[in-house]
Amino acid sequence: MTDPAPTPPGYIGEKARVLARLKRIEGQARGLQRMVDDEQYCIDILTQVSAMTSALRSVALTLLDDHLAHCVREAAATGEDVEAKLAEASAAVARLVRA
Amino acid sequence: MTDPAPTPPGYIGEKARVLARLKRIEGQARGLQRMVDDEQYCIDILTQVSAMTSALRSVALTLLDDHLAHCVREAAATGEDVEAKLAEASAAVARLVRA
Amino acid sequence: MTDPAPTPPGYIGEKARVLARLKRIEGQARGLQRMVDDEQYCIDILTQVSAMTSALRSVALTLLDDHLAHCVREAAATGEDVEAKLAEASAAVARLVRA
Amino acid sequence: MTDPAPTPPGYIGEKARVLARLKRIEGQARGLQRMVDDEQYCIDILTQVSAMTSALRSVALTLLDDHLAHCVREAAATGEDVEAKLAEASAAVARLVRA
Repeated sequence: MTDPAPTPPGYIGEKARVLARLKRIEGQARGLQRMVDDEQYCIDILTQVSAMTSALRSVALTLLDDHLAHCVREAAATGEDVEAKLAEASAAVARLVRA
Repeated sequence: MTDPAPTPPGYIGEKARVLARLKRIEGQARGLQRMVDDEQYCIDILTQVSAMTSALRSVALTLLDDHLAHCVREAAATGEDVEAKLAEASAAVARLVRA
Repeated sequence: MTDPAPTPPGYIGEKARVLARLKRIEGQARGLQRMVDDEQYCIDILTQVSAMTSALRSVALTLLDDHLAHCVREAAATGEDVEAKLAEASAAVARLVRA
Repeated sequence: MTDPAPTPPGYIGEKARVLARLKRIEGQARGLQRMVDDEQYCIDILTQVSAMTSALRSVALTLLDDHLAHCVREAAATGEDVEAKLAEASAAVARLVRA
């Protein structure tokens, strides 16, 4: 699929919520910079990094979930190449698991 | 150790570099918000999330590496409780691996 | 879907290869026991554990990939509830990412 | 350290327990082969793979924890190169986190 733009993405129904979560993650990245700048204790910083990684994974799983549901609903409606899209989703999961 | 502040943290020697990497990660979080706001393709967003997760892990491993090296150098010099610090580092690794 | 047995699973086409990979993983588990029994160096054991974890993840990604492709091919043919199956796959990915 | 064998490894105090856990993991690998051989449902197999991955990670964290505690106790007693050992442990953590 060379131009996926015409149809709204799978996360469209919760765009505001996804944005809010990413905004919070951005805040965590800023908080980490403050901690490092203040030369805070390394273990406390690592705890925050773990929390931020966990929040990121969680957003990724939401996006993937929406994408899988969306991708099939679309496919049923338009008859476009579902297998290619699932192979693509599968590759995205592999990148995620190994990130 | 109730007050770890007096001694500089293990990452002090590369504080500027760690800050630069966290700043870049903050930029990635902002980039993700732009992508979601523009309703870009979900798989492309997931690819960026994987890259950002990978960058975060990498910073965490640097901090941990510095902490382990530092914690021992310190311990040799001051004779404080190294085992407690290593147990603490070990717990941080467990959180990181499961994040 | 209360009885998924009637249709062959997604990995049917590479059943022999998946079995061979799991057999090798079983061998890695036995090799680890030998290393521990011989009281070998902890870091060398950890290196083998990482290799084994990596092999397991890789099998999981193969199974998931086959399942996603299969699940849609099936759904197109039989008209059964694809969304439920994708939600199920999505939950499996979440467990995998957090394992 | 070219010959780590002379001193007992960090996990020596719980060797029997570690062996029992690895034996159970070997059993999980055999159970997975049975499931695949019986052509069981892919999602159920993935659930077992996640459980097995989790068990492996858990053993790895135990070994690492023992190693860190041991490595320092040893170092205090013998004066050998602790920093090299910690760098080595740090590299093992990096492999584990990315496995």
